[in-house]
Amino acid sequence: MTADPFKLTIHMVSSVDGIIAKTDNSVGWFETTDNYEKGVSGQNPEEFLKSIDCYVMGYRTYEHALELSKNYGWAYGETPTIVVTHRNLAIERKNIETYSGDLNKLLEERLKPKYKNVWVVGGAMLAQDFIRLKLADEIRLSVIPIILGEGKLFFEQLGLEQALHLKDVTAYKNGMVELWYEIRKG
Amino acid sequence: MTADPFKLTIHMVSSVDGIIAKTDNSVGWFETTDNYEKGVSGQNPEEFLKSIDCYVMGYRTYEHALELSKNYGWAYGETPTIVVTHRNLAIERKNIETYSGDLNKLLEERLKPKYKNVWVVGGAMLAQDFIRLKLADEIRLSVIPIILGEGKLFFEQLGLEQALHLKDVTAYKNGMVELWYEIRKG
Repeated sequence: MTADPFKLTIHMVSSVDGIIAKTDNSVGWFETTDNYEKGVSGQNPEEFLKSIDCYVMGYRTYEHALELSKNYGWAYGETPTIVVTHRNLAIERKNIETYSGDLNKLLEERLKPKYKNVWVVGGAMLAQDFIRLKLADEIRLSVIPIILGEGKLFFEQLGLEQALHLKDVTAYKNGMVELWYEIRKG
Repeated sequence: MTADPFKLTIHMVSSVDGIIAKTDNSVGWFETTDNYEKGVSGQNPEEFLKSIDCYVMGYRTYEHALELSKNYGWAYGETPTIVVTHRNLAIERKNIETYSGDLNKLLEERLKPKYKNVWVVGGAMLAQDFIRLKLADEIRLSVIPIILGEGKLFFEQLGLEQALHLKDVTAYKNGMVELWYEIRKG
């Protein structure tokens, strides 16, 4: 193990019932009205996000982020971002590229040579593909204190058993719990 | 609010992907091989379980507990237990009764007059019915550090949005995380 190894992290925000997107795609539920006294305040997100040197996302997640950017700005800043898609996208931002094809190759040829701390931020299918191919190192699941009742599940019957190691748990003042797992290899 | 109100808690043990039963019904995955340094050791379970004065379960959960009892003993001890089923069961234990019919009535006529701390321990359908009918007060979800990949989901698209309040989070040495939520009313 080198001092500063490459790491691919899957990050998802989910309801308690494992849903990551409502049927209408609205995101108001990310803003909880809960108050958990014992929770920590949000860590300095600037500092934390700076450690991520590349984002990877699927086409729908990209489209959705683009839609949200009209009101809230582009969520992923100047960090290099790769959209995994077969489509030809007219992308205006210089830090966004597309990739089409094998995920092993993406990792070996595009990600590992240039980045240390890659975050896959959705969608569910892409995240599952990374897990299935044993290419993901960690999962960070932010659980919002709500049952949504219907929508898109993060884990849509992955069809593969995978042991995890609990790396850390953080509960926030807004009732969100972050479960941070390492994917156990071998 | 009285000093010692009636409380109905739904308790489930689930994988990170929200599965509460494997397709083959095996339970070996409850025993994790994980080690979470910062976790607490199991609290005194005797003391804790003593506070539960009634268990409620569905037919399949009962059958499964009965099957497991051949090797591990009956998991619910001498605590009064109600099996919600339309079937006529030949039950040998004196502390087990059956109930068939409306869950509101079960609560008002059988549970509230006699008990303070009722735990619904499965299955998913029964738990969901209690949530849907707004009869449940709390949810305690014990998350095992594993992705199962296929099986019976705890929340099978409940079809109802329900805000929760995070009451407590406990991470155990074996990597299990207990998420304890209050169901927000009104």
